[in-house]
Amino acid sequence: MKHPLLFLCTFLISSSTYLTTSHSLTIPRLSPISEWEKTLHNPATFVASDEKEFYYNQTLDHFNYRPESYTQFQQKYVINFKYWGGANSSAPIFAYLGAEEALDNVPSSIGFLTDNAASFNALLVYIEHRYYGKSIPFGSRQEAFKNASTIGYFNSAQAIADYAEVLIHIKKTLHAEKSPIIVLGGSYGGMLATWFRLKYPHLTIGALASSAPILYFDYITPPNSYYDVVTRDFREASEKCYETIRKSWSEIDRVASQTNGLSSLSHIFNTCNPLNNSSSLKEYLYSVYTSAAQYNRPPQYPVTVICGGIDGASSKSDILSKINAGLVAYKGDKTCKVNGPTNVSETNMGWKWQRCSEFVLPIGIGNNSMFEPNPFSLELYTNECKKHFGVSPRPHWITTYYGGYDIKLVLKRFGSNIIFSNGLKDPYSSGGVLDNISDNLVALNTVNGSHCLDILAKKESDPKWLVEQRKKEVEIMKGWISQYYSDIGALRMASKFHNK
Amino acid sequence: MKHPLLFLCTFLISSSTYLTTSHSLTIPRLSPISEWEKTLHNPATFVASDEKEFYYNQTLDHFNYRPESYTQFQQKYVINFKYWGGANSSAPIFAYLGAEEALDNVPSSIGFLTDNAASFNALLVYIEHRYYGKSIPFGSRQEAFKNASTIGYFNSAQAIADYAEVLIHIKKTLHAEKSPIIVLGGSYGGMLATWFRLKYPHLTIGALASSAPILYFDYITPPNSYYDVVTRDFREASEKCYETIRKSWSEIDRVASQTNGLSSLSHIFNTCNPLNNSSSLKEYLYSVYTSAAQYNRPPQYPVTVICGGIDGASSKSDILSKINAGLVAYKGDKTCKVNGPTNVSETNMGWKWQRCSEFVLPIGIGNNSMFEPNPFSLELYTNECKKHFGVSPRPHWITTYYGGYDIKLVLKRFGSNIIFSNGLKDPYSSGGVLDNISDNLVALNTVNGSHCLDILAKKESDPKWLVEQRKKEVEIMKGWISQYYSDIGALRMASKFHNK
Repeated sequence: MKHPLLFLCTFLISSSTYLTTSHSLTIPRLSPISEWEKTLHNPATFVASDEKEFYYNQTLDHFNYRPESYTQFQQKYVINFKYWGGANSSAPIFAYLGAEEALDNVPSSIGFLTDNAASFNALLVYIEHRYYGKSIPFGSRQEAFKNASTIGYFNSAQAIADYAEVLIHIKKTLHAEKSPIIVLGGSYGGMLATWFRLKYPHLTIGALASSAPILYFDYITPPNSYYDVVTRDFREASEKCYETIRKSWSEIDRVASQTNGLSSLSHIFNTCNPLNNSSSLKEYLYSVYTSAAQYNRPPQYPVTVICGGIDGASSKSDILSKINAGLVAYKGDKTCKVNGPTNVSETNMGWKWQRCSEFVLPIGIGNNSMFEPNPFSLELYTNECKKHFGVSPRPHWITTYYGGYDIKLVLKRFGSNIIFSNGLKDPYSSGGVLDNISDNLVALNTVNGSHCLDILAKKESDPKWLVEQRKKEVEIMKGWISQYYSDIGALRMASKFHNK
Repeated sequence: MKHPLLFLCTFLISSSTYLTTSHSLTIPRLSPISEWEKTLHNPATFVASDEKEFYYNQTLDHFNYRPESYTQFQQKYVINFKYWGGANSSAPIFAYLGAEEALDNVPSSIGFLTDNAASFNALLVYIEHRYYGKSIPFGSRQEAFKNASTIGYFNSAQAIADYAEVLIHIKKTLHAEKSPIIVLGGSYGGMLATWFRLKYPHLTIGALASSAPILYFDYITPPNSYYDVVTRDFREASEKCYETIRKSWSEIDRVASQTNGLSSLSHIFNTCNPLNNSSSLKEYLYSVYTSAAQYNRPPQYPVTVICGGIDGASSKSDILSKINAGLVAYKGDKTCKVNGPTNVSETNMGWKWQRCSEFVLPIGIGNNSMFEPNPFSLELYTNECKKHFGVSPRPHWITTYYGGYDIKLVLKRFGSNIIFSNGLKDPYSSGGVLDNISDNLVALNTVNGSHCLDILAKKESDPKWLVEQRKKEVEIMKGWISQYYSDIGALRMASKFHNK
C-alpha cells in the first residue's frame, strides 16, 4: 500500500491573495505536499489498520486563568503501535507535530516515519493542531471561526503547549515515562518542532525540522528572498524559459488592454470561465511557478517540466502561447485553467488567520526576479488583516518569543539536538537555518532538494543525495537516543553510588 | 547611605493561612527580605538619584489574539545609568526581574547589583511584575483584582513575556543591541530568572537565580521538606530548644482547654488582643519559626537568637514561658504579639492569587518535625482556591511548561549559563537545584546560608563563606560576558572572511 508524496507539504501562502492588494502574492503555503499533488491521489481511501485514533481533553488557554480559559475541547491524535518496542525497554516515541491541516491523511504521508520506525522500535504519534480537522474548540468550526474572540486562542504558543500536554498524557497512559521522544514536522510543522525542542526540552530529546523557515520573520531574511529563489530555480533550469516568463507579464497587460483582449487571453489559456481581468491570470501563473519551485522534486522536477513546455513550443509561437505550453506540459491539456471552481479549504481559512495574527512573513518581490516587482508593505498587510479579522497582526511576536536574530550567536552555547533540513531549490529555504550552529544543532541541506522532501516516503527513484540526507538524519537521531540511554545509565549508577 | 538586608526576600506563604484549613500553614513567602526586617527600616526614605523611572506600554495577553488581549497597561521599570559603559562598548545590562511586590524599594535592596555594577560597567535595570506596584492592568487594583476574568492574565508566562518585551524595548531605545543581558532574581524572582534564561535565551546570556525552589512543584520535592529543614535548623542550633518547641503545641492545647486558659495564654504571650482560640497563637509561632529559619542570617542568626531565649529561660520556667522567652529574645519585649493589627499587603493579595492559579507548592508537615503533622492535601487546597477565586489551580502546569522532573538528565545537554545559588539553612533550598547539572549550569550552595542572602548588599560583618559565594558568582558572570564578546568577535571574523 503506497502513499507516496501525498498531502503533507501543501500551500502556505496561496491563501494570501487578499492580503496583498491587487498585485497579489500567491506563494505556496508552508506544508509538505503541494495542493496539486493532493489532487492526484485520493488519500482518503487509505485506512491504516496499525493506527488508532484518540482524543485528549485539551485546555483552551494555557496562559490564562479566566474562567473561559478552562474550557476544554477534544484534540485528536493518532498512534501507530506496530513498530514499538514497548515501555519496558524504554523504546522511543516519534511525535509528528501537526500543522495547518486536518490530521486525516498525515500519517500515511509522512513516510519517513513508517520507513524508519522498525529500525528504532519506535512508537509513532501524530497530533492534530488546534483549530484544524477534528480538534476544534467551541463545538463547531463555525463557532470557532466566528470572530477574533473565539479564534484568538489559535496560535503557535498554545499549539505547542497542547502538544506538551498530549505527550505527557501519552507517556503516562503507556507507562512510558522513560521513553525518549523525538519530535518532527515539516514546514510550519518544522517550526513547531524546532520551537518545541527549544521551549520544552524536558519533553523531547531532539527535533527534526524539515524545511522550516524560522528566520523568515521580522526582516531577518531579506523580504524578496522567496521570489528570488523561485527565479533562480527557473533560471537554472533554463535561461530562455526565465526570459520568456519575465517578459510575459507586460505581454499579458498588452493583450488584456486590447479590444476583446480578455477574451483572447481566456482562449489562449483555456480558462474555466472567461477572465474579467488580467490579474486573476497572473495570480494563477504566480501560484503555478511558486508551487513548481517549492515542490521541485525528483523524478519529474516540475520547474524542468514547465520550462520544457515553454522552451519546447514552436519558435514561431508568441510569448503567451509558450507560457501556455508550459502550463500544459505541467498540468496536461485536458483540464481548464484559471477561474475554476474554488474551494476554500479549512487549511486556507486557518492559515489566513495564522498569517493575520502572528505569522507575518514579510515576503515581497524585488526588482530582479522574473515576476513583477511588489515590495512587501506591512501597512497594507496590517490594514487588510484588520479589515478581515478586526485585530492587527503582531509582527514582532515570533522573534520576541522564539528568537531568530543572531541565531548562531544565541544558540551556539544554548540548546542541542535539532536537525534543520532544507532543499535549496525550495524558496522557503531562504528563511531556513542553512549552517551548522553547533555540533548538535545541525543543518542538512541538499542542493537539489525541495520543500519537505526528506520526511516523505522513500521511493525507488530517489536520487542518491536524498537517500544520503535521510540516512544522515537517521544516524543523528540514533545518536541522540544512544546518548540519552547512556545518560540515564550514568545517572542511575551515580544515584546507586550516592545511596550506598 | 546604607540599606542593608531590607525588603526583598519577604514572606512567601504567610498569606496561605486560608488555604490550609484550621491547622494553617504560615510559611514565609518566596522573597529576599522577611516581613519583620521590613519593619526595622523605612526604605521609602531612600531616594536614589541615579535611578530613573520609566513606563512601557505592555500587552495584556501575549498568548491570545482576542480583542481584549490587545489592551495595554503601563509597566514600570527603573534604570540606573551610573555605572554603565555605554552602548558603543557593548557594556552589559543587568536586569533584575521583579517578583511579588511593588518595585518601590527593590533597587536599594538588591545590593549585589550596586556593589558590583562598577566592575562590570553595567547598566542596572529593574522591572516591576505585572499586577504589582504601579504595573496594574484595568486602570486600578480594584478592577484588576475584581474577579478571575480580570486577574486571569496574572501569571508567570505572561510576566516573563513582559520582561522580554521590556528588555527588547530598552536595548532598542539605548541602541544597545550588542550589549549582553544577564538576568537575576531572588526566590520567586529567581524562578523567573531561571525560566527566562530557558525560554528566552535570545534575550539573556545568563541568569543568577538566588534561592529559587524551582523543584518544589508537583511532588518533585517531598512535600514535607520545607518544615523538615526548619526543624533541622532549630535542632542544629539546640537539641533542647527543638524539644521545647516540639512539646509546646500540646501544652498550648492543654492550657487553652482549661477554664480561662485563653486568657492565661494571652497573658503569657502578651498578645495585642485577647486570644479567641489557640490556633492564632500557633499560627503566629509557626510564622516566627519558619521566618527565622528562612532568614537565618549572620550576624545575628534568628534561630540562634530564639533558641538562646528559650534555652536561657530559668530552668524553673514552664514550657510556654520558655517559648515566650524565645519570642522576646527575637522581637524584644516592648511590642505585643499575636492578634495585632493586620495589614493585607498587595503582596499578600497577589501571591494568594498566584498560589491559587499556577504556584501549587505542595508543602505539608510530616511526622518528624518540631511542628504538628499536617500533610498537604491537594483536594482541600483546590477547594479553598475555588471558593475564593472561582477557578481551580492547575497543579501540573509549572512542570508542563517549565519542566523540573529529571532536571539533571534533561538539562545536562541543553541550556547553559545559570547559577542556582542556595543557602542550605533556607527551608526553600530543599526545592532548589543543589548539584551542578553541567559545566555551566552550576549550583553554589552555602552550608550556613539563608534565603537570598547572596543578592543583598555586602556588609562588614559578612562571613567568609558569603564573601566567597558572591565572589564566585561575579567570576562566573564575568566568564559569560567574556565568552559572549569572544563569540561575537569570532562571528564577525568569520563573516568578514565569508564576504571576501
